[in-house]
Amino acid sequence: MVNGRLQNSLPVSDRGLQYGDGVWETLLISSGKSILLDEHLERLNWGCRVLKILGLDEKILRQEIAFLTQDISHCILKIIITRGSGGRGYSAQGLNKPTRLLALHKLPENIENYRHNGIKIQYCHTQLTHNSLLAGFKHLNRLEQVLARSELVNDCQEGLVSDIQGNIIEGTMSNVFLILGQQIITPSLEQCGIKGIMRAYIISLLAKENIDVIERCVSMQDIDNANGIFFTNSVIGLWFVVKLNERYFEYKKGSFVFTVINNLQKKIRLLEKKSN
Amino acid sequence: MVNGRLQNSLPVSDRGLQYGDGVWETLLISSGKSILLDEHLERLNWGCRVLKILGLDEKILRQEIAFLTQDISHCILKIIITRGSGGRGYSAQGLNKPTRLLALHKLPENIENYRHNGIKIQYCHTQLTHNSLLAGFKHLNRLEQVLARSELVNDCQEGLVSDIQGNIIEGTMSNVFLILGQQIITPSLEQCGIKGIMRAYIISLLAKENIDVIERCVSMQDIDNANGIFFTNSVIGLWFVVKLNERYFEYKKGSFVFTVINNLQKKIRLLEKKSN
Repeated sequence: MVNGRLQNSLPVSDRGLQYGDGVWETLLISSGKSILLDEHLERLNWGCRVLKILGLDEKILRQEIAFLTQDISHCILKIIITRGSGGRGYSAQGLNKPTRLLALHKLPENIENYRHNGIKIQYCHTQLTHNSLLAGFKHLNRLEQVLARSELVNDCQEGLVSDIQGNIIEGTMSNVFLILGQQIITPSLEQCGIKGIMRAYIISLLAKENIDVIERCVSMQDIDNANGIFFTNSVIGLWFVVKLNERYFEYKKGSFVFTVINNLQKKIRLLEKKSN
Repeated sequence: MVNGRLQNSLPVSDRGLQYGDGVWETLLISSGKSILLDEHLERLNWGCRVLKILGLDEKILRQEIAFLTQDISHCILKIIITRGSGGRGYSAQGLNKPTRLLALHKLPENIENYRHNGIKIQYCHTQLTHNSLLAGFKHLNRLEQVLARSELVNDCQEGLVSDIQGNIIEGTMSNVFLILGQQIITPSLEQCGIKGIMRAYIISLLAKENIDVIERCVSMQDIDNANGIFFTNSVIGLWFVVKLNERYFEYKKGSFVFTVINNLQKKIRLLEKKSN
């Protein structure tokens, strides 16, 4: 759907194509509900503010989302907002009609399998550059993620991506958490990386149980010392790591890592099922 | 023109839109010729190699350029090559049908005016991040340029953009050269910035006159010390700076700065007129 019309194409002059001049969100539609919709739209608006994309009518966007997903039980909804069509050249002067794109996608078949059995991961060589202005939200300049993703070997489902200083930042498509003893740690994302909606949700879930997630610089040494690692995003929910390169992780029933991951997965499932 | 068809739209699923996953070139069509076409296509191919965009047929691309510009005397040709349409997600696996987009645009009316009378410029606050892998060629992740361009106040035609270390790198849409005494200097572009086709052409023109252009780090101090500054790209050719903030630059007939700029402009004009 493009600006409320059911179509699959958009003008070549759209600045989303010309310059990656836009923002996007990927939501899970589950049991007929758009999961954490408010949070996704909040991040979308944050990105529009930073990029000074003017004129987004959130009310219309919400109506279009409701219309498009009305008969849908389970799927992925991708929302893209671009600055709209402009002339040639970088100047955005006078542009105040952003393009709204909504697209539905099938859920990957193996999400449940990986939730249950865990995933294998690797390190990626592609490094994330620092840009505090563009960090956190999902803009359309995603070549670093495309390059990092292209590194994954066949039996790996995700990869650890570092910044230019060698600190671990995130997965290629997800956020990462480490369990170190009784502590849960996730990389701080002030200079690069995406502040995931599921990441924030998990931090809030743990806070309710009086478990503070520590946001700090994460080194490869921290990864080596971790008892457990898990990745999160709005579609996969939570995937725990069973293998990183040649190292295996164990999640013994009753252990802290097992309990944390098990509880979080239950609560994510609850989120996906409850009416909201 | 999209993949050889005369159309103005492309699929929403195109990765150029989804991730900025592509490269582009802007050429001048002058006196019916595509100026420095080989050099532009060389940079386009360089970008495709870095991004591992497979399957671009340069022969077909050249045919399409020739077809589209056959009856055109003067205009701008924009070429975009994207990785093509893919599924949701960053993975580019199996994609080997890039999208070829060609679009003609009118030449801005004031190019000649600014060539003759010079331009006013300013500093931009937007900083360019370092990424040696993505530096040099024109990929579609251009938010930094969009943000830098948005800073230009009304009477400025171009702005000086620095990197995260505070070194001057380029203009928002062009490369920059400084004349410091009898030396001509241009920023080295190993970590960020675009290696302009006109930049390289000007370096080669000067080399023929035994004037070596020094590529090195350029500081704001260098800008303060410069006797003359000029910007170059494939469309504008060469614009010299008459005013930076409150400082005026003089180009007295017979001076080194005047002679260099005058000679270069003559040769650019020759390039634009000669049959090639």
